[in-house]
Amino acid sequence: MKQLPLSKVYQLLEPGPVVLLTTARKGRANVMTMSWHMMVDFEPPLVACVVSGANHSFAALQATGECVIAIPARKLAPIVVNVGNSSGRDIDKFAAFGLTPVPAKCVGAPLVAECFANLEFDTGFVNRYNLFILEVVEAWVDPKQKKPKTLHHQGYGTFVVAARPSS
Amino acid sequence: MKQLPLSKVYQLLEPGPVVLLTTARKGRANVMTMSWHMMVDFEPPLVACVVSGANHSFAALQATGECVIAIPARKLAPIVVNVGNSSGRDIDKFAAFGLTPVPAKCVGAPLVAECFANLEFDTGFVNRYNLFILEVVEAWVDPKQKKPKTLHHQGYGTFVVAARPSS
Repeated sequence: MKQLPLSKVYQLLEPGPVVLLTTARKGRANVMTMSWHMMVDFEPPLVACVVSGANHSFAALQATGECVIAIPARKLAPIVVNVGNSSGRDIDKFAAFGLTPVPAKCVGAPLVAECFANLEFDTGFVNRYNLFILEVVEAWVDPKQKKPKTLHHQGYGTFVVAARPSS
Repeated sequence: MKQLPLSKVYQLLEPGPVVLLTTARKGRANVMTMSWHMMVDFEPPLVACVVSGANHSFAALQATGECVIAIPARKLAPIVVNVGNSSGRDIDKFAAFGLTPVPAKCVGAPLVAECFANLEFDTGFVNRYNLFILEVVEAWVDPKQKKPKTLHHQGYGTFVVAARPSS
């Protein structure tokens, strides 16, 4: 095993799928790109996500306790990148990037019509789950395994395989 | 958009890569299969994961505050499934499934020689991160988008694309 700089660890575990997170506050909708999220329970489905305090969406998510996670397919990749590289502080990202907000059923944040799936969310609390935060103190890679294909479980024993860039 | 049963939501967001989590306690190493984890910060690299109290690894992780996440490539898929379908309560999974434990540098839990990457971890605490737990209250899919290919970000603008089973 070859030691890996800690600054490169996130490239190993970066989970995806990349999603869009929408919020709405004071009559204004916003959307951000996010890839740090994980399932926490099956049903009711619980999801954890990291939204930095530096993101414009943080305050809306904290204040309203509501959001939508919209899942884009590959054809939306250029829009997903543009949404991720701009801030709702400066522009209306729905208008700027041609995304269509659709009223949700249970929450104030909008669905995104162009995405193949949309999930409406209430926010909950962290403490009651068996959620560990782990800090990487050493990282190792096997230089003999080049471009390994990783396993991505999608339930009921169905896996997809994604090729990784060489490390 | 078509309404999706909440019991199927985890198939949309199931992140992967599927990983192996090793622990060691009282001189005995154990390994479990895990796919619910996410990056929480870049550097120092922080990772959140869900380990159920029903898992044999839970007590060791809680007691020692140490573990290793080993990332298997596709060729290990049968072993990954076997590790996930058995418990360290009953068997020595390293011996039973032909995995080779290798001493780590900083933690008591072993690396897994057959995996292409191994990360040594200290556990931390949940409260100080901008970590939201979201509960899905409604779920929608677009029946016109069949087998969408999702985006998986691997850092520095590099994406891999994974085909999804049709919903």
